[in-house]
Amino acid sequence: MSLWLSGIGVSRGIAIARVQKLHGGDLEIAEYTVAPEELEREIERFRDAQQQALAQLREVRSKIPAGTPGDIAAFIDTHLLMLDDRSLVDSTVANIRSAGINAEAALRRSRDALVAVFEQMEDPYLRTRRDDVEHVVSRVQRVLTRTERELPGGQVPLTEPTVIVADDITPADIILLSQQAVLAFVTEYGGPLSHTAILARSLGIPAVVGLHNARRLLRENELVIVDGEHGHVLADPDDKALEHYRRKQDQQAQDRRLLQTLRDKPAISGDGVEVRLQANIELPEDAAVATANGAAGIGLYRTEFLYMNRKGLPTEEEQYQAYSRVVSAVRGPITIRTLDLGADKQVDSGQRQGPTPNNPALGLRAIRLCLKEPELFRVQMRALLRASAHGQVRIMLPMISSLSELRQAKALMATCRAELIREGRVVADRIPVGAMIEVPAAAISSSLLAREVDFFSIGTNDLIQYTLAIDRVDDEVNYLYDPLHPAVLRLIHMTIEAGHKAGIEVSMCGEMAGDACYTRLLLGLGLTDFSMHPANVLEVKRAVREAQVGELRRRVADIMQAASLDDFASLLAAL
Amino acid sequence: MSLWLSGIGVSRGIAIARVQKLHGGDLEIAEYTVAPEELEREIERFRDAQQQALAQLREVRSKIPAGTPGDIAAFIDTHLLMLDDRSLVDSTVANIRSAGINAEAALRRSRDALVAVFEQMEDPYLRTRRDDVEHVVSRVQRVLTRTERELPGGQVPLTEPTVIVADDITPADIILLSQQAVLAFVTEYGGPLSHTAILARSLGIPAVVGLHNARRLLRENELVIVDGEHGHVLADPDDKALEHYRRKQDQQAQDRRLLQTLRDKPAISGDGVEVRLQANIELPEDAAVATANGAAGIGLYRTEFLYMNRKGLPTEEEQYQAYSRVVSAVRGPITIRTLDLGADKQVDSGQRQGPTPNNPALGLRAIRLCLKEPELFRVQMRALLRASAHGQVRIMLPMISSLSELRQAKALMATCRAELIREGRVVADRIPVGAMIEVPAAAISSSLLAREVDFFSIGTNDLIQYTLAIDRVDDEVNYLYDPLHPAVLRLIHMTIEAGHKAGIEVSMCGEMAGDACYTRLLLGLGLTDFSMHPANVLEVKRAVREAQVGELRRRVADIMQAASLDDFASLLAAL
Repeated sequence: MSLWLSGIGVSRGIAIARVQKLHGGDLEIAEYTVAPEELEREIERFRDAQQQALAQLREVRSKIPAGTPGDIAAFIDTHLLMLDDRSLVDSTVANIRSAGINAEAALRRSRDALVAVFEQMEDPYLRTRRDDVEHVVSRVQRVLTRTERELPGGQVPLTEPTVIVADDITPADIILLSQQAVLAFVTEYGGPLSHTAILARSLGIPAVVGLHNARRLLRENELVIVDGEHGHVLADPDDKALEHYRRKQDQQAQDRRLLQTLRDKPAISGDGVEVRLQANIELPEDAAVATANGAAGIGLYRTEFLYMNRKGLPTEEEQYQAYSRVVSAVRGPITIRTLDLGADKQVDSGQRQGPTPNNPALGLRAIRLCLKEPELFRVQMRALLRASAHGQVRIMLPMISSLSELRQAKALMATCRAELIREGRVVADRIPVGAMIEVPAAAISSSLLAREVDFFSIGTNDLIQYTLAIDRVDDEVNYLYDPLHPAVLRLIHMTIEAGHKAGIEVSMCGEMAGDACYTRLLLGLGLTDFSMHPANVLEVKRAVREAQVGELRRRVADIMQAASLDDFASLLAAL
Repeated sequence: MSLWLSGIGVSRGIAIARVQKLHGGDLEIAEYTVAPEELEREIERFRDAQQQALAQLREVRSKIPAGTPGDIAAFIDTHLLMLDDRSLVDSTVANIRSAGINAEAALRRSRDALVAVFEQMEDPYLRTRRDDVEHVVSRVQRVLTRTERELPGGQVPLTEPTVIVADDITPADIILLSQQAVLAFVTEYGGPLSHTAILARSLGIPAVVGLHNARRLLRENELVIVDGEHGHVLADPDDKALEHYRRKQDQQAQDRRLLQTLRDKPAISGDGVEVRLQANIELPEDAAVATANGAAGIGLYRTEFLYMNRKGLPTEEEQYQAYSRVVSAVRGPITIRTLDLGADKQVDSGQRQGPTPNNPALGLRAIRLCLKEPELFRVQMRALLRASAHGQVRIMLPMISSLSELRQAKALMATCRAELIREGRVVADRIPVGAMIEVPAAAISSSLLAREVDFFSIGTNDLIQYTLAIDRVDDEVNYLYDPLHPAVLRLIHMTIEAGHKAGIEVSMCGEMAGDACYTRLLLGLGLTDFSMHPANVLEVKRAVREAQVGELRRRVADIMQAASLDDFASLLAAL
């Protein structure tokens, strides 16, 4: 009999294959006392295990095929760093010594302390570091307890197409499995921002996460259909279901082939409006991936990665090297966003202390942090200005809410430029400076801010959160997250109009820009400049090419003029 | 030689008098082991001390003169409840028994645990509960350690006018001292939201808080000038300073007398525009205070107090009694706001659990919480509807961000009404329902929401926070809190225009409404309906009576049309 299960669909696509369960996720850790004279040997045992785990990870790292997006290797690099970090290693050694306990129990204590730190964090992506700690620690625990987790295809490569069902999967295992005949992942834990989700999307493998009891409900070797878009898993499907999903699979495959034909075609609407589709990237390596996906340039290069997973801050030289690498690799302009991190200890600037703020999302973040710690900002600004010698750098300031922030940042930039020129460095003559429009105040006063910058880039994720006063990673309220709320559309509209009226470019780099569902609406709102995850470029391009922009603008103007919320909703639904 | 000190001015007015220091704030608590057979006696000793402390507080409570604002007694009631609360008493007894330690040390452990809980809280007012814990515990500790804190005037009434200088003052001590010849308070700890600040303002006694080292820097019996508006304390002033401040004192006294003459005069502008000035209240007793201060009605009755300082939730009957009391006491309409608390365990509904949200201000609060726990909302709604039989009740919904929230709340109200009528209860025929406009989305879509409600009330405190994406109790970013940000003024303007165009009333109940500095601007933005702390009514009334509204509207229209931020700022400064 067929069984329908529902989880969270996090990576699109349909897979039809047999289940292989991944066991051994739950380790039983015993705590026992170690005699004082045995403690040094116990420490030795821990260090050996840690070194073995490092070696395992390094091997995984070496197996990543060339041409894989940069963020995939980055996951393993994060684990390598974490596994070698003092906060894990030294504290475990100290726990063994001071409590006189076994390595496994001591390591568990270190893990608990680290997990507590990461759970405090505000940034939803950084909060998933908690999972990194769990994964890294569990790898060491497996070595210590000699309970190796046997991967399907670990010893004998998988020959049959397989759907992996697990409690949770580490990035390393995902990478290894993706090199086997694995067609989909189904996990009991995780959400849309979990590593499993991000990696599966990057690798293009369908995945459903957060499917509680999946290992209990699905039988080994059972045939299942996984619908990674809608989060469905159908076990033991009947012929009708199989036929339906096979047809869908074919359609999707055909669709993907068709999309690929758009790669080198221009992003021009049916009625001839030229649109620019750029990519958001995080790592220098991603620039190539963006080009391969048909992106016309880089609309958002996030610089946070340079500051994370490390002790201390990156030097000017390090940053300069990283920026130059991307800038040289990209033809055309590249928009680099200055540091957009929060105050909750995510940056180890050596100066930050004090209590965790009650509402970090409303606290010292991004440009606020940079202006409060001008030395932090100065180092980045100098590196950016130096990199401007190698291409068309544009600098984008995140979380701008007031004119004075803009003017302070521009003043600091001018000072850095003067310094560099005195030092004989090359700096581009003109470096456009733009503001992220992601605080409601900035959108509402965009007509006034437009005179002060060279471009706007609308950050819809934060803009929506603040406008609706909700934290979208808070499960209690994320049902209120609504990109189509009339207030959100009014702010987007207002910002585009204000920018265009002032003659500056208005782009959008939030998730809305990369979701082809919204392309028609955004074109209708007047947007002609999109920046998104490279994987979304082709779908958005198709939507652009099929659109009649003139007609959409007329219809969206009607929506924006709707006299009641019901009219608004029905006109929008019909767009 | 004169000495200038600066703290935080929290209660206006000038006092010139001699210093009396309050000693004994810092208690030294020793921890020692109690023999097992002595533990029950130790517990007895703790219980005796707790009972003595309760008796002391009850005596203070009984000494509060009739006619004192309700919130003053409420502070003592809070302490009485807390001192008798299981979380304090039982945990201390448990600590004595399990750790085998003395009562003082056990009590300190209970305090530390409680303080940790309150420090997590989001609401800045609730966070000051921490101080309540400290005060209550220190009262018991003083009994236990027999280190009675001797109040000036405790045995022999003060005859000389006195400025009290202390580390911190408990609400009970403030009340006792206010009945002596105390002219001002100066404390080392505390901020604008501390109990000292709130009580001093309520009692009309000048106060400066957060003046570090005040006890060390000021000498006993020294003459000082306290300027409670600007936060200055001038020790050993020379004749010139004395003369200057005496003249200022006279002016202020005269000013107060003049203000009093406005009590029964209408709030009509110089050019004949009628304005309504109502009061915000928290406790039923405050209704009388509001009337005494010349308020034309109650524009905001906060109902949170009913839910706080207690175990479990208030019953429908309890709430009905409380609401009826206020409704009957007020002539004219009274606007009652439904529960506006957050999810961080402030309401003991027995159902709330799960982790503290990362950004409680962007979480499950107010109407969101009520719609998620409809039983909580239903009980309040039934009590409000029943109270509507006794006067002109208007119901105001906090944190509205979407149409669906409004419709759900109204549907629940309709259901409750039908139920009550079936039960044979009396419910007013028409109960206006309004929305707080405090989420940016609500202000931005106010033209659409206006058709769905009977009135708007702009809550500037939250509106400003969300619009600027800052938490104003976060010291790192509160410099960005700016009621005059063009985006804030645009949202206020937009909301007033949208409401008036739809023919509904638009009032404002945030702090901006009660600050006479902003009265001209708000009148110029079209506001004619203000609600504020009762203490501010007369000053705002004076500003209204001196204003030429027609002229202000023209000038504010120019400000709102300013083409640049610099023009905006200079026009605003000249208003």
